[in-house]
Amino acid sequence: MNLPTLNQQWIYLAKPEGSLELEHFSYQSSPMPEVSAGQVLVKVLALSVDPAQRMWMNAETYRPMLQPGDVMACYGIGEVVATSAPGFRVGDYVEGDFGWQQYAAMNPMELVRRDSHQSLEHLIGVLNITGLTAYFGLLKIGVPRPGETVVISGAAGAVGCIAVQLAKLAGCHVVAIAGGQSKCQWLRDELGADATVDYRAGNVYADLKAVCPRGIDVYFDNVAGAILDACLSLMNLNGRVVCSGAVSQYDSGGTSGQKQLPGVLIRKRIRMEGFIVFDHYGERQQAEANLAQLLTTGKLNALVDIVDGLDNAPQALIDLLQGKNSGKMMIRVAG
Amino acid sequence: MNLPTLNQQWIYLAKPEGSLELEHFSYQSSPMPEVSAGQVLVKVLALSVDPAQRMWMNAETYRPMLQPGDVMACYGIGEVVATSAPGFRVGDYVEGDFGWQQYAAMNPMELVRRDSHQSLEHLIGVLNITGLTAYFGLLKIGVPRPGETVVISGAAGAVGCIAVQLAKLAGCHVVAIAGGQSKCQWLRDELGADATVDYRAGNVYADLKAVCPRGIDVYFDNVAGAILDACLSLMNLNGRVVCSGAVSQYDSGGTSGQKQLPGVLIRKRIRMEGFIVFDHYGERQQAEANLAQLLTTGKLNALVDIVDGLDNAPQALIDLLQGKNSGKMMIRVAG
Repeated sequence: MNLPTLNQQWIYLAKPEGSLELEHFSYQSSPMPEVSAGQVLVKVLALSVDPAQRMWMNAETYRPMLQPGDVMACYGIGEVVATSAPGFRVGDYVEGDFGWQQYAAMNPMELVRRDSHQSLEHLIGVLNITGLTAYFGLLKIGVPRPGETVVISGAAGAVGCIAVQLAKLAGCHVVAIAGGQSKCQWLRDELGADATVDYRAGNVYADLKAVCPRGIDVYFDNVAGAILDACLSLMNLNGRVVCSGAVSQYDSGGTSGQKQLPGVLIRKRIRMEGFIVFDHYGERQQAEANLAQLLTTGKLNALVDIVDGLDNAPQALIDLLQGKNSGKMMIRVAG
Repeated sequence: MNLPTLNQQWIYLAKPEGSLELEHFSYQSSPMPEVSAGQVLVKVLALSVDPAQRMWMNAETYRPMLQPGDVMACYGIGEVVATSAPGFRVGDYVEGDFGWQQYAAMNPMELVRRDSHQSLEHLIGVLNITGLTAYFGLLKIGVPRPGETVVISGAAGAVGCIAVQLAKLAGCHVVAIAGGQSKCQWLRDELGADATVDYRAGNVYADLKAVCPRGIDVYFDNVAGAILDACLSLMNLNGRVVCSGAVSQYDSGGTSGQKQLPGVLIRKRIRMEGFIVFDHYGERQQAEANLAQLLTTGKLNALVDIVDGLDNAPQALIDLLQGKNSGKMMIRVAG
């Protein structure tokens, strides 16, 4: 394969004080990465767009905090184009934190081999972090039982839209919260939500109450803030709050504080539990096989919102943080 | 037995706007309760003083909200003095929500039979709600493992002082938070806490950090508010917060909001879980037997702070809410 001599990259320039803007990144042509002995050179095929990327700018999380000057961090799927590492061959599909760039030199430990028979969309989305976050969060933390009421916020997002469908498959009454009537209609008509709440219209608490006549047993929280407060008010005894994300907080520089916590947890015996998908990767293989089976049999609809070209990466992340996507957002870099 | 013709009672007069005061109650002599067919007349021997009593004034909880004009609600231990209910005999010890009064007419369903061979102090304290709250909260919600660091707030209180000792018995590094040097010294010297933090002196976060060099694995929270915030900042990955009480909030009419929630739960994969002791009463018999065994073998020190006389009940509750007690507080009414 003829490799180019330059590697296009997006550099993270400065920590945003408020909303993320295009000015926080600069696009540059760098020399191709140097590949040390034992390393793998990866051609990036597709990149994932995730709210967590905004969180990486704010603080140390499960990864070190992003520093100005870094190539913007990003998980993706790539193809091995050169390797001296045992166990990897040219042409293999791999996933890793490649960053917003065309090529990345990676250590074998930083890579996970992927099945090249699956589409890039599935490998980035439902069979990766977001699909597995929905799977483990709903089934292992939320533990829904048939007949229970499950509420999912950020329901039109990559995690939410899989969680909605898995909760339906678990026999639950599923209420999806999303922004805008078109997303709500899609969630009802295409994904099978029993009811929806448009958080941009009307009163979230009153609207939720109307569609949760038996209260809420499981709340799958992708957003935190005022929607979490409304759900806490409607939780049933022994309810479970799955803390999957807090996207309402990432771009706003803080929180107004959840005034009901922790008292409401005691009064209603609620379990509120955070998790990171990586904690459950011991069960990843089984989970992926189950999700792939649901895809094959048409029981799971894994919509991917594809953005073409690495040059559009910053705008894609900004759009995601503003809730403009439906389903998983992916940047097609090559291939 | 000669029964009196009058029944002394404390009536709850009005919902406190801020701190609880003596003026929220009035003492009165009422006729003896009428005992319907199938009911049990109980002579109250001892009453429990609990922070939860203040919460019952604020809102519906696991029991209906207290209403002005009610006899002030209170759990206690009594002796059956008259009965036409099958299964109860005169002289039996029973527990129930008798209220602040000398005699109560109860339905059999509202009573639990107790072993009259145990002391009233133990029947009110370690072998009742507070001891069992410590037992189930620490062991079933906190799930401490040997070598882990367990922090307990309200540690000199009835629940806290049992939790401190159970955490030591579980092989943990135990840090007790209490108000004042004398309570802290008692927790170290008599109850075996490895370290203490006096929340009234210095900086709770810095002081806690100094005595939790490996972070916090289990936080048994009796107080909420600023101390919960400090502990959340020091929690380890996969930590557990046992939401047992929120006494800093009961008497202050609200909360300033926990600004770190829910983000910190996600970043650190924390489980934060509320519970009510009654949820676990299916296991009460075994738990009581275990606690009684620890008492018998001298492994558990169950201090009871005894207040003499029903007339002192309101002041006892006010003192408890101000943190003036060490250990379980009990009102001796008769016997």
